[in-house]
Amino acid sequence: MSSSWGKSFHLSIYGESHGAGIGVVIDGVPAGLPLDLEQVAVFMRRRAPGQNRASTARKEADQPEILSGFHNGYTTGTPLGALIRNADTHSSDYSELAATARPGHADYTGFVRYGGFGDVRGGGHFSGRLTAPLCFAGAVAIQLLARSGILIGAHAARIAGIADTAFEPVALDPQTLLYPASQPFPTLDEQAGAQMLAAIESARMVQDSVGGVVECAVLGLPAGIGSPMFDGLENVIASLVFGIPAVKGIEFGAGFAAAELRGSQNNDPFCIKDGQICTTSNYAGGILGGISSGMPVLLRVAFKPTPSIAQPQQTVDFRQGCEKTLSIHGRHDPCVVVRAVPVVEAAVAIAVVDAILSQAPALLESQ
Amino acid sequence: MSSSWGKSFHLSIYGESHGAGIGVVIDGVPAGLPLDLEQVAVFMRRRAPGQNRASTARKEADQPEILSGFHNGYTTGTPLGALIRNADTHSSDYSELAATARPGHADYTGFVRYGGFGDVRGGGHFSGRLTAPLCFAGAVAIQLLARSGILIGAHAARIAGIADTAFEPVALDPQTLLYPASQPFPTLDEQAGAQMLAAIESARMVQDSVGGVVECAVLGLPAGIGSPMFDGLENVIASLVFGIPAVKGIEFGAGFAAAELRGSQNNDPFCIKDGQICTTSNYAGGILGGISSGMPVLLRVAFKPTPSIAQPQQTVDFRQGCEKTLSIHGRHDPCVVVRAVPVVEAAVAIAVVDAILSQAPALLESQ
Amino acid sequence: MSSSWGKSFHLSIYGESHGAGIGVVIDGVPAGLPLDLEQVAVFMRRRAPGQNRASTARKEADQPEILSGFHNGYTTGTPLGALIRNADTHSSDYSELAATARPGHADYTGFVRYGGFGDVRGGGHFSGRLTAPLCFAGAVAIQLLARSGILIGAHAARIAGIADTAFEPVALDPQTLLYPASQPFPTLDEQAGAQMLAAIESARMVQDSVGGVVECAVLGLPAGIGSPMFDGLENVIASLVFGIPAVKGIEFGAGFAAAELRGSQNNDPFCIKDGQICTTSNYAGGILGGISSGMPVLLRVAFKPTPSIAQPQQTVDFRQGCEKTLSIHGRHDPCVVVRAVPVVEAAVAIAVVDAILSQAPALLESQ
Amino acid sequence: MSSSWGKSFHLSIYGESHGAGIGVVIDGVPAGLPLDLEQVAVFMRRRAPGQNRASTARKEADQPEILSGFHNGYTTGTPLGALIRNADTHSSDYSELAATARPGHADYTGFVRYGGFGDVRGGGHFSGRLTAPLCFAGAVAIQLLARSGILIGAHAARIAGIADTAFEPVALDPQTLLYPASQPFPTLDEQAGAQMLAAIESARMVQDSVGGVVECAVLGLPAGIGSPMFDGLENVIASLVFGIPAVKGIEFGAGFAAAELRGSQNNDPFCIKDGQICTTSNYAGGILGGISSGMPVLLRVAFKPTPSIAQPQQTVDFRQGCEKTLSIHGRHDPCVVVRAVPVVEAAVAIAVVDAILSQAPALLESQ
Repeated sequence: MSSSWGKSFHLSIYGESHGAGIGVVIDGVPAGLPLDLEQVAVFMRRRAPGQNRASTARKEADQPEILSGFHNGYTTGTPLGALIRNADTHSSDYSELAATARPGHADYTGFVRYGGFGDVRGGGHFSGRLTAPLCFAGAVAIQLLARSGILIGAHAARIAGIADTAFEPVALDPQTLLYPASQPFPTLDEQAGAQMLAAIESARMVQDSVGGVVECAVLGLPAGIGSPMFDGLENVIASLVFGIPAVKGIEFGAGFAAAELRGSQNNDPFCIKDGQICTTSNYAGGILGGISSGMPVLLRVAFKPTPSIAQPQQTVDFRQGCEKTLSIHGRHDPCVVVRAVPVVEAAVAIAVVDAILSQAPALLESQ
Repeated sequence: MSSSWGKSFHLSIYGESHGAGIGVVIDGVPAGLPLDLEQVAVFMRRRAPGQNRASTARKEADQPEILSGFHNGYTTGTPLGALIRNADTHSSDYSELAATARPGHADYTGFVRYGGFGDVRGGGHFSGRLTAPLCFAGAVAIQLLARSGILIGAHAARIAGIADTAFEPVALDPQTLLYPASQPFPTLDEQAGAQMLAAIESARMVQDSVGGVVECAVLGLPAGIGSPMFDGLENVIASLVFGIPAVKGIEFGAGFAAAELRGSQNNDPFCIKDGQICTTSNYAGGILGGISSGMPVLLRVAFKPTPSIAQPQQTVDFRQGCEKTLSIHGRHDPCVVVRAVPVVEAAVAIAVVDAILSQAPALLESQ
Repeated sequence: MSSSWGKSFHLSIYGESHGAGIGVVIDGVPAGLPLDLEQVAVFMRRRAPGQNRASTARKEADQPEILSGFHNGYTTGTPLGALIRNADTHSSDYSELAATARPGHADYTGFVRYGGFGDVRGGGHFSGRLTAPLCFAGAVAIQLLARSGILIGAHAARIAGIADTAFEPVALDPQTLLYPASQPFPTLDEQAGAQMLAAIESARMVQDSVGGVVECAVLGLPAGIGSPMFDGLENVIASLVFGIPAVKGIEFGAGFAAAELRGSQNNDPFCIKDGQICTTSNYAGGILGGISSGMPVLLRVAFKPTPSIAQPQQTVDFRQGCEKTLSIHGRHDPCVVVRAVPVVEAAVAIAVVDAILSQAPALLESQ
Repeated sequence: MSSSWGKSFHLSIYGESHGAGIGVVIDGVPAGLPLDLEQVAVFMRRRAPGQNRASTARKEADQPEILSGFHNGYTTGTPLGALIRNADTHSSDYSELAATARPGHADYTGFVRYGGFGDVRGGGHFSGRLTAPLCFAGAVAIQLLARSGILIGAHAARIAGIADTAFEPVALDPQTLLYPASQPFPTLDEQAGAQMLAAIESARMVQDSVGGVVECAVLGLPAGIGSPMFDGLENVIASLVFGIPAVKGIEFGAGFAAAELRGSQNNDPFCIKDGQICTTSNYAGGILGGISSGMPVLLRVAFKPTPSIAQPQQTVDFRQGCEKTLSIHGRHDPCVVVRAVPVVEAAVAIAVVDAILSQAPALLESQ
């Protein structure tokens, strides 16, 4: 298996970059959600290519057709199926790649894994394009959560070494959380965004690419969601987030920085505020023992630079077993981070929904 | 659920820190593994408390009794059950904690999650002691992998800001990989280890604690293991590693550092060496598209500083709903990283075994 | 969840009877299967409606469009997606049913389960039409098995009290096994088939329906597939077969008849024939301790009579909470057993493939 | 895998008949259940050997030791572990069997499955003794269900061709449901029980054995529990019940008899009684479309006659590959049905709990 995920909000994603279409089946959507398709479309457009110079020139409407599980404006409770047809495919761009390992890509590992039978056009099932159905599922999850006042937001926290303002770990408010999603470039600090865009453009000009970090937060998640050991929120979120291509790391709360601190610094003192138990700092990122504490859930995801670059690169032809030089043509994002912002939101929303449905489904059935 | 994990090498871990015992059932161990119990004991001793001043004063023999699945020196193929009795428990140390949220601990979140019915003595099921059965399972996994020439090793890569020499990403050899496990303090660089021990001691003297990073590597894993999207090696390893208490981050290969690089730096050029396809660098950490490349698998895990510190801390009584000051007594490690080194090895070994058994079990049946 | 199944050959089925379409995603199809689409179509036609007077007048081409996982004539190893558009829907036939519980149907239970949000047109996701994507998956499984010489066949063993010749438990040969599939009415004994068809017609003339039993067998399955306790072949097959609408019972080998026998009758003596260990009788149905014995696997599945009958029936309006009389119009099979024969084959094939892929995938990779 | 089951009430069973012990870990028991250990013991004694002449002479106290998940009289919410030590083992009885296929047993199939490494003493992990931990889990499930007024009962419906009175499908009341459990021989009709006991004794006298059928019912399950397709109550119950050794068939409601009926007979008319929607008959066995209807859930399970009989039987030595004659010594039940009655109750209770916890856990949290 590869592309099925979830215990209670179960995804099955399919498709290849240049095949007939890509899609998802979600088994476990609660009945009676008045799914707002316009909001779904708005969310998916944030991920769609062709929005600005930071992304590939490929144009895809990415309009999902709902095949099942949605009737008279509400989810039915039975599997929700959605299909996105592929339109703008230039498969000839990939003819050389059937046997050439693009450095940083899964061509070679996929070749070994699938015995050479994989559809390599556009990366096939390994393509970042598969995050479109993930975003569809995420849009559904976000609407489910919103009904209970649980909100998800993310921003480009770092690109090419340029830092955006971080989410405030304790006092993060809904307006700030959702602000980056409303901007053409998803940062809190507009100037940082402009510098990131310039740095991406610089890289692109020299046929190179850059990486970055997405920070994501969840507001409104009540205390008590998650479990110790292997069903903790961190485990569940991480197991989904690493399904996004180019992700190479994830950290919660202070994360790797916590490793440098002393306990007296990193421990979040508990207090009572407005009758609620909370903490005065939030190095834990809202998760203790795998379980939500009621504080904002905070995580950061590291994306490597886009591996498809036009510079000549040293590689091998893995069918003939010889070394060669490769220059990748085709259309590629010089930085995936911008489009990855909603994808991280989607993954986190799905993970949180799955955790809640597995433990306390009534929480999401309230209207 | 909380403590069950795995598709093909399925763990079910049980127990509380101060209950009758802790243990694990492993369903899916291939038949015919000549399990070396002495090696298991050696491995588990690396995690056991009381080895040096960096760890708690609690003494536990941690001798697992095998209850099933092992007969005449070989695994039978049916579930392998192991039980470790708890011996040295000082439950009175915890009497105050039934209603006091230790900062950085799961007392409060566990209280909400389990409605106050949890066994809070010694952290109950949230205790780091539950990593003992995880290590038993890991010892089995390590022996399974070793039969096919797949080796796992780890070391304390950072503690209290002091860095050990890193594993060499391309040229890492078995001797270096396994060296830290043979040392009293698990580093490659003995001097770094001595400094770490001193730093831990410094923290302990002021009733504080420190965190750190464990680096782990897998050698000998053939190319082609893993899957795209949600069954990638990174997903599977992360979903297990976050089950280790105090873990707040994980990264593969260059990880968060990759986010700062350009594609031309981070892409690993492919080459052919001794007739084998490999890469000249290994920023990918041996994983592309979720699938092993044949290069060393490399990952780093961030541990927060031990939350149990003896300094007075501000917190709340969550039953009475009032603020209070807490001074934790009891026996605690001023740094969990040293004992966590074999735990990370165990988790990674289990994840790799599960991935192989789910895809190509014959690989582990060879003798 | 409802419509996801499988550990290693994972199905996710979606769709409603009168929605946009129905389909399936299969995650875990081994790469390199040269899927014969004509054979798939032949198999699915056996289930399609409108073949003879025993079935509904609804016409559906049931032509699956493969959306992913199939390239250049071979499966790619990544998820295989197939979609069947719904064409001939008469939804107005169902307008009354939104609140009327058809006796023997899931209208009322589905209403309670999904809070009244279900798509009830044509039975929605509960419709027998959802067996079409199951058959697509079964056709793939059958081709996978055939490559290794494992064959599946079934026949209408009983309809309306009329018995077909049973499969010979020990000496069943491939020709006999596959014979019913080649006939317009799927029996071994043509005369029994004619009588069954007459009995179905008789029931239909009085606006009634009949039930029956499908017998299914697997030939060529080597000894040693399956596991004790919950992963036995019987568990796995049963968990899938009860997903076929109208199934109310399943038995393996002598089944319920074994309950009437003595051990000396029911025990199958072992012998050696042509150097192979086998049994001289096969009351066990080829399964001992959940594991295949190498003998033919034999099972029988009980189908209730079609609940949709045109006679007036006493029932309730569950929205208004009052009793009423219902006369069902619309198009319905007076007996589902005939069309269910390939569906049972499909379910059994999928279960066997899942069991093999979970244990010894190399068995299905041979060509 | 073999012995792990469940999505939300997850079992992991381990042990062999003549090993150190047998046990179970249950992950997902809701916190706060005041588990009555005396009731657990009473329930398990019904399954224990040595109760009457119908069972093996082996004596086992079958006293489970709870290792975890239970504290101060309540379940904690974290995994509940229980261990039963094996005491009265006569392993020498089995020395011959390491290579001799007992007809009707899993010796040969287990040998092939586990490459000869299995622990064959007393049947090892295939032994009926493994139903003891299943019964422990069932006793917990029964207590969980009882808190919400859901009751489970079963009886020996047929043994050696002698029929007990059947449960009344519509009007079954709690007293009748639970009556057989209170009797030395678990029938509704005492005379039928006496005849069954005599028939068992007759078989035993000629070194033979008999089979039978257990009927089980669930009262008080509200309408709306379960799902269409693969998560239906029938699928979930069947997938667990076939884990009981010697089970060869299962049917719900009218089951195989429904296959002989017309729709006008088998359809249960809906009516309103005391303001509740119910049906005037219950051929469906309380399940429509996989979902509970609110009527009694009814099922019947077929057990084959005990395969271990003392008569000489023809078989093979599968290590040497030669035919031989076998006379089984040791202690065996001449009929497993009597002791299987609580085992079926246990399996059904577990399945129902898992279905409820997966869908509406709040239903079981009420006190």
